[in-house]
Amino acid sequence: MNRPRELVLRYWQAANARDWQAFAELLAEQIVYEVPQTRERVRGRANYVEFNRTWPGLWRADIQQLVADDQQAVSVIAFHVDGTTETGISVFEFDGDGRVARITDHWPAPYEPPARACDCIERY
Amino acid sequence: MNRPRELVLRYWQAANARDWQAFAELLAEQIVYEVPQTRERVRGRANYVEFNRTWPGLWRADIQQLVADDQQAVSVIAFHVDGTTETGISVFEFDGDGRVARITDHWPAPYEPPARACDCIERY
Repeated sequence: MNRPRELVLRYWQAANARDWQAFAELLAEQIVYEVPQTRERVRGRANYVEFNRTWPGLWRADIQQLVADDQQAVSVIAFHVDGTTETGISVFEFDGDGRVARITDHWPAPYEPPARACDCIERY
Repeated sequence: MNRPRELVLRYWQAANARDWQAFAELLAEQIVYEVPQTRERVRGRANYVEFNRTWPGLWRADIQQLVADDQQAVSVIAFHVDGTTETGISVFEFDGDGRVARITDHWPAPYEPPARACDCIERY
């Protein structure tokens, strides 16, 4: 198991356990978290722990897919909260000390498909 | 470079070049393409090539991030079409012959951020 894969497993494990000390230890002090869809940004370990600690609801993240090379990782999670499930896609980048230096988070939501130019698509 | 990384680079290169023969050669005959947000599915190499070949507009995909291990890969692309840019996230899975067997595609769109429970967020 490469190090980024192991770190992402521990990241979600600590988050689900609300173990904010273990969670914080995985993060670079200057971590930057961004959501391109909302143009939100959180800077720094203390802020980022607080952002997660205060996230409302009895949420839980289940890893659906995890791809990791030696420097980056992507997790696709089912984020369960208050009886609903959203999909979260997190791109993790790491610093030389093996801490999470940057997370770019995406939250793709359902939408109606456009008209398509070929007769090759089914719905499920 | 691991094989999945190389295959994804060739996949987007062939798509941007509209080289449908090279594109098709990267795909398993039974490839399954899914968009969870719209619950659309395309089955089979011929259908999937047609789906891409008939995609309207002068589009071009620029790889922003690429993470690959020995069995899977994720690309984050800037998908430029008709003067707009969307973000596409593709999760690739491969068969034993090194062909793309499954693609799960996500298209996260901008949205207004919800009220947040901490004073730790900036906008950019």
